[in-house]
Amino acid sequence: MPSGFDDLSVSVAQGGSFIGAAKAKLTIILQDVNRHLQERWMAPAAVRRPSKGSTALVNQTGLELRSLVKSDGALELSLVRLPVPTPKDNEVVVRIEATPINPSDLGLLLSAADLSVAKTSGKGAETVVTAPIGPAAMRVLAGRVGKSMSVGLEGAGVVISAGASPEAQSLLGKTVSIFGGGMYGQFRTSKAAGCLVLPAGIKPEEAGSAFVNPLTALGMLETARREGHKGLVHTAAASSLGQMLNRLCRADGFPLVNIVRSAEQVQILKDLGAEHIVNSAEPSFRDDLLASLKATGATLAFDAIGGGKLAGQILNAMEAVAAGASAETYNMYGSSTHKQVYIYGTLDLGPVELARGSGMMWGVGGWLLFHFLAKVGPEVEARLKARVANEIKTTFASHYTRTISLVEALDPDVIAAYSRRATGEKFLINPSLAVE
Amino acid sequence: MPSGFDDLSVSVAQGGSFIGAAKAKLTIILQDVNRHLQERWMAPAAVRRPSKGSTALVNQTGLELRSLVKSDGALELSLVRLPVPTPKDNEVVVRIEATPINPSDLGLLLSAADLSVAKTSGKGAETVVTAPIGPAAMRVLAGRVGKSMSVGLEGAGVVISAGASPEAQSLLGKTVSIFGGGMYGQFRTSKAAGCLVLPAGIKPEEAGSAFVNPLTALGMLETARREGHKGLVHTAAASSLGQMLNRLCRADGFPLVNIVRSAEQVQILKDLGAEHIVNSAEPSFRDDLLASLKATGATLAFDAIGGGKLAGQILNAMEAVAAGASAETYNMYGSSTHKQVYIYGTLDLGPVELARGSGMMWGVGGWLLFHFLAKVGPEVEARLKARVANEIKTTFASHYTRTISLVEALDPDVIAAYSRRATGEKFLINPSLAVE
Repeated sequence: MPSGFDDLSVSVAQGGSFIGAAKAKLTIILQDVNRHLQERWMAPAAVRRPSKGSTALVNQTGLELRSLVKSDGALELSLVRLPVPTPKDNEVVVRIEATPINPSDLGLLLSAADLSVAKTSGKGAETVVTAPIGPAAMRVLAGRVGKSMSVGLEGAGVVISAGASPEAQSLLGKTVSIFGGGMYGQFRTSKAAGCLVLPAGIKPEEAGSAFVNPLTALGMLETARREGHKGLVHTAAASSLGQMLNRLCRADGFPLVNIVRSAEQVQILKDLGAEHIVNSAEPSFRDDLLASLKATGATLAFDAIGGGKLAGQILNAMEAVAAGASAETYNMYGSSTHKQVYIYGTLDLGPVELARGSGMMWGVGGWLLFHFLAKVGPEVEARLKARVANEIKTTFASHYTRTISLVEALDPDVIAAYSRRATGEKFLINPSLAVE
Repeated sequence: MPSGFDDLSVSVAQGGSFIGAAKAKLTIILQDVNRHLQERWMAPAAVRRPSKGSTALVNQTGLELRSLVKSDGALELSLVRLPVPTPKDNEVVVRIEATPINPSDLGLLLSAADLSVAKTSGKGAETVVTAPIGPAAMRVLAGRVGKSMSVGLEGAGVVISAGASPEAQSLLGKTVSIFGGGMYGQFRTSKAAGCLVLPAGIKPEEAGSAFVNPLTALGMLETARREGHKGLVHTAAASSLGQMLNRLCRADGFPLVNIVRSAEQVQILKDLGAEHIVNSAEPSFRDDLLASLKATGATLAFDAIGGGKLAGQILNAMEAVAAGASAETYNMYGSSTHKQVYIYGTLDLGPVELARGSGMMWGVGGWLLFHFLAKVGPEVEARLKARVANEIKTTFASHYTRTISLVEALDPDVIAAYSRRATGEKFLINPSLAVE
């Protein structure tokens, strides 16, 4: 094969750190997601005058966390002080009190920088963290150099200011969840229609993670039903998302096979009452997977890992079950059962390797929440969101290891903790906590 | 990763010849296809009495080529003499005069045997060819041991006997194309409804290949249109099928990018007037592919090769075009354009390797003509077949290197010639030629 066709991560790796390049690539994907989000859900950021009838907070300011890649090869994290935005007629301003650090936030926040040698200057609201970025990663990050990026996909808080429209006005004082980037700040403008209004009694810290994981879990189940599958497979299944999907599938009686990578993760899911748990680190993995696929009839998998052989192994095992696992070998080919793997994550940035052996009725493809929502349309989206609001303390509850302030989010020791992405650990930022 | 999950070709290869195992695997796939075909298109093989009003040929016999894998590890090719079948009410008997040796026939015909050391005994209709099969391949072939297999996916000839139904009777004397396995014989029963009746003046030798390649080419174009693509990419594009697809796309004005692997193949397609030809053996492959994708807007590819990096390279190039090839790097991720590769062949039995770099809107999957026809339903199938009949001498014409008899098909020198699968070479069997 001619050269010049290696994917970006490899070509960048040749000039520097592979890990750095991988992080940079993830960052870039997330930047793009973030841009889409802002276009879709958020009000434009232009300066606005208070509209007639609005309840704007004039002459007040709020802090917002920013991530900046500088042309000299440094990441700079800092807080900026901005006027509290003035809502347009159909907008509200939310005082954010809970915004999680999702795996999908870390790429944009930390970029490809080496935080282990981060330097800090200033204190409180003046804290500035800087950390170096390798030259290879810098090439990939060219598109964000010099742009001070807002961070934070989702959050919850109280509506403290509203535009003149009845819909916006009706939200004043309500606790709402919102979505769309830039949540790591004290105040966030949102279209009124984009607010998920929470039932009375729900606190912001119970609703900070109402979008990414809940809608992803619901989207997976909805996809399985729309495409006619009888059961689901999920990889990296002990994650926060995986635990939520397990609760959701149990609540709906939808068969779920949980694939994890350690005995510890098996225990997490056992404790949550999961019925089908398969450990890919065990020598019996293939047999265990076949047994679970047979028991559930699952022909759809959502894979968070991406690179490597797992997606192909799942397809081939599904085919083995479909063709009759113990039948003569020549039934193992060409079953008429469609088998599908959707790759929604990139824990492994290497190539997806599909060993042939799943017949001719199979598919592998990308899956992204935002594309899914665009495909199913606003009515389905509204139905799914209503379910999240109703079950935010049960099915869709998120658990946090620690709640931190905006200033603590800039503490190198705290950064080291939340950037570990350890299974079961999740941090919540409360931007309304005192900053000194 | 734990062991025990390697695909069949690899595990068999460990115990013997990889090539043999690969051939055996292909054979098995084709056996399964054949079985499906027989269920779908063909009349059951049970012995029948002439129905009232039928025009059965009583007490006549015909020769049929058979392929048998014996338990002692030998392939045996021979001719068997069978009574001319008696058609049921809705059936006809066709005297086959033209049946091609498709790449997809060779697997079932030759199995995984080493024909270079074949031995021949007998003469004329008594000719028997035997050739050894390695022990590793034999394990994979277990399902067909001892079963005398009919061969030949498609053919054409004259209806010489018909059941009592008006539909069957109306076909008497007509030249028809039929489909469904077992065509390498002098007489073949078919359901009347399964016959493609050819316009007056079309000879059997012009219509022997009316199904596999024509419907595959039409199926690819139909798939592109149904799934909303503006252009197509085809790999191994200088094949008989590729040349036909090129004629079809030119006739319909549908943009087609032809990917080939040598300068000689480039010339074949140039001579046929193909507009977009890309040679994957050139160092400029990626740039040439990008230019052709940009010119055509193609976002769907049909790939005959399967294993290796090509499918992923096509997806990533499509994404680069979709995101704007020369834009800032961070537009290279996450375009909202869906890019699809369907793998319909297995020229390379290795794993499909997809380097990440096509964003989140992509898919790779299997594609099989019979699944496609089942999906689109009988009306579309009838429309496509009618087009084949009308354009059998132009768009869907096949060209043969040589026409041989059933006995010649058992000649080791002839076998060596047709099993080469050289690009542009195609053999036609005429079972009605004298057998001595």
